[in-house]
Amino acid sequence: MNISAIQKCINPDCGSEFDCGQAMFKCPDCGDLLDILYDWDKTTVPAKMSDFANRWATRNNPLDFSGVWRFRELLNFCEDKHRVTVGEGQTLLQQNDELAAFLGMDKGSLHLEYEGMNPSGSFKDNGMTAAFSHAVMVGAKSCACASTGNTSAAVALYAHACGMKCTVFIGSGRIAFGKLSQAMDYGANTIQIQGDFDDCMKQVQEVCTRLNIYLLNSLNPFRLEGQKTIMYRIIEGLGWEVPDWIIVPGGNLGNSSAFGKAFFELKELGLIDRIPRLAIINAAGADTLSYLVNERGLKWNGGNVNMKEVQALYADFTARHFSPHTIASAIEISRPVNLKKCLRSIDICDGIVRKVTDEQICDAKALVGRYGMGCEPASAATIAGLRDMLADGTIGKSERVACVLTGHLLKDPDKTVSYHKNSEGEFSNPPVESANDIEEIIKHIV
Amino acid sequence: MNISAIQKCINPDCGSEFDCGQAMFKCPDCGDLLDILYDWDKTTVPAKMSDFANRWATRNNPLDFSGVWRFRELLNFCEDKHRVTVGEGQTLLQQNDELAAFLGMDKGSLHLEYEGMNPSGSFKDNGMTAAFSHAVMVGAKSCACASTGNTSAAVALYAHACGMKCTVFIGSGRIAFGKLSQAMDYGANTIQIQGDFDDCMKQVQEVCTRLNIYLLNSLNPFRLEGQKTIMYRIIEGLGWEVPDWIIVPGGNLGNSSAFGKAFFELKELGLIDRIPRLAIINAAGADTLSYLVNERGLKWNGGNVNMKEVQALYADFTARHFSPHTIASAIEISRPVNLKKCLRSIDICDGIVRKVTDEQICDAKALVGRYGMGCEPASAATIAGLRDMLADGTIGKSERVACVLTGHLLKDPDKTVSYHKNSEGEFSNPPVESANDIEEIIKHIV
Repeated sequence: MNISAIQKCINPDCGSEFDCGQAMFKCPDCGDLLDILYDWDKTTVPAKMSDFANRWATRNNPLDFSGVWRFRELLNFCEDKHRVTVGEGQTLLQQNDELAAFLGMDKGSLHLEYEGMNPSGSFKDNGMTAAFSHAVMVGAKSCACASTGNTSAAVALYAHACGMKCTVFIGSGRIAFGKLSQAMDYGANTIQIQGDFDDCMKQVQEVCTRLNIYLLNSLNPFRLEGQKTIMYRIIEGLGWEVPDWIIVPGGNLGNSSAFGKAFFELKELGLIDRIPRLAIINAAGADTLSYLVNERGLKWNGGNVNMKEVQALYADFTARHFSPHTIASAIEISRPVNLKKCLRSIDICDGIVRKVTDEQICDAKALVGRYGMGCEPASAATIAGLRDMLADGTIGKSERVACVLTGHLLKDPDKTVSYHKNSEGEFSNPPVESANDIEEIIKHIV
Repeated sequence: MNISAIQKCINPDCGSEFDCGQAMFKCPDCGDLLDILYDWDKTTVPAKMSDFANRWATRNNPLDFSGVWRFRELLNFCEDKHRVTVGEGQTLLQQNDELAAFLGMDKGSLHLEYEGMNPSGSFKDNGMTAAFSHAVMVGAKSCACASTGNTSAAVALYAHACGMKCTVFIGSGRIAFGKLSQAMDYGANTIQIQGDFDDCMKQVQEVCTRLNIYLLNSLNPFRLEGQKTIMYRIIEGLGWEVPDWIIVPGGNLGNSSAFGKAFFELKELGLIDRIPRLAIINAAGADTLSYLVNERGLKWNGGNVNMKEVQALYADFTARHFSPHTIASAIEISRPVNLKKCLRSIDICDGIVRKVTDEQICDAKALVGRYGMGCEPASAATIAGLRDMLADGTIGKSERVACVLTGHLLKDPDKTVSYHKNSEGEFSNPPVESANDIEEIIKHIV
């Protein structure tokens, strides 16, 4: 399989093109986002999506076992010898008729894609397996990211898997050390900077430039290529059919950006005949996308995004010293780096944006536990958004919906315990106390 | 596929037989353990292990997707219509050459079987998918267990997956609520009894008998049938070859019991030509098996186990008010219920038993993080034991070893953080602090 990809600036006024053999995450000409563009040799792309099922039979080949690389014709930016895999993407698409019934949906309508089943416990592994393959391709020996959550865990895991040095930057102040347990355990060099997350982001970029370190923050377009495969696996799980709706939490907007690109490419290749609608769910305390799209009318507009609206909002954030705040920490982001690409996805998928409160998120998370396998808070924004969209008729009860659950239940067990011990939640399930007496115990058996 | 199994008492002086259509977990005649015995119709069992690979191609069938049920001819105690699956067993056998090199082993010698990738985050799902299938088969409507850890999580998950009511018993006193986050989230009715774990075990058995509730504690022989498949997947991951050694943590001894039975049956069926050796690793603070086997010479002895030795030890525990204590809470058990079956496995597999200290366990856990995907403390007893057995020559550096990592890293993140923040551990990886200054930051990049 020959490499058929280039990097191209998404700004239509620039449009600069570069080959993939460079570690470069912003357009050096205009500073805008870069995109991976393919010139597929159609003879090497399968004729239909279901042809990928042939790889199931050869799962003793690690690239066929991987839930990312078994679709490698559609991520054809490097040679097989550079592809890094740790067995990611053994995720579960669960048809959940019990939750569907609870929500008033028809049987067979609701599917949950549990990305927490990835090795590091979140969807990030999909992107990292791709970005680290690019890092190996360009000969990187050291990598870094700024993150206090799922990203650092995934980066640290893939770094040691391909023998790369790894540095993770965290801020001082109220740091949730539990979130860093994986980065430390996976051997990352963890540097705590006296400053906040924005300081870390600034410094990590400077450090990477000066020391020639490979940067794995959300700008990296190769991460998005890997995240496309979440959509391929949903189609695979539906017997190679396309759902009516994809629902995804919106934070830095990497997933929504990747999903739109995935469907655009599949349609272009003739591998699907229609594109599902995309619903992106913000937390109310971090609702930049929802505000810009729903209240300011921001659109992709062929790449000519009205950035003045965005800059005005961000200037207002700065003036007000605004920090986003939500229990769904994985989407607690007010300046999403992939905003423009996400607007493109909304354009491609006839997408919509909603926002939900923390209370809605916590109740929805409890529903995913009670009827599914559980998830971390940010993931549950999807179900909270679905409840709203069913209530107002945006989504019909017989439409086929796939919700992406981005992170493992055990990423944030404290929030689970505190929700259930507090009886005020809509679905709280507190323990009951009983004397060590068989007659009293039996009274508590429901 | 016709059902070919019966339940049989393992006591050779009793040997009572019962069909599988009953919920019965101790021999009603003598109170000893029950075993599942097959009379396989050899025409329905594949001729060779590698034939199971045919199921890879048909993973759109949930029973073929399941890492347990794709081997269903070898767990043939119920009809397909009763089999419950949530997609368990998508686990990873990782050839870990980096850890092998660190330990002085040859390339290709060391493999880690990460059972934390199961839906509830531990190997327990293998057993629960089988036991719940039996529960469905016998028409159970309600189930219960006493547990504060992985068992309760797995029971609660499978209970709601098959629409069964579920009650989990926990003791009062120093309860780790984090461990119960899953049981609460998965909707189990959690009853906290004023008493300790032994009180819970006693009460749950009484409650199950009086209210006709299906009991899912470790006595349940159907759980062990599911756990056999961990061995099938190791063989599958090794290209259908048998390793030289299996290393497993020893707690209630369900896994070691199941693994010996798995290999005995495979040999009997002609599906393997040799049986690997089994090493069972106790924590030093919960070393009943190690003491009885290594210091008292306890043996299977054709089923005539010298139970006087066991009773004397347990009487001494009672007299001394002895409670086991280890950081590896999942194996913090002093009266292992599957002791006799485990002795049979040692007999079948020419097995050995070792014990390791908490310090060894913590250091070994850090190695699994640094070179692998991490694990919970009990899982790391395997690597700690392996280090000892390599050092004294019991295991040679070119022997092929598979270590079973029983639980997910995120089951116990606090222990991970405290190990790494304390610089005294052999492999501690504490964060470094830096001023928000590029020159100082660069000094910390290693």
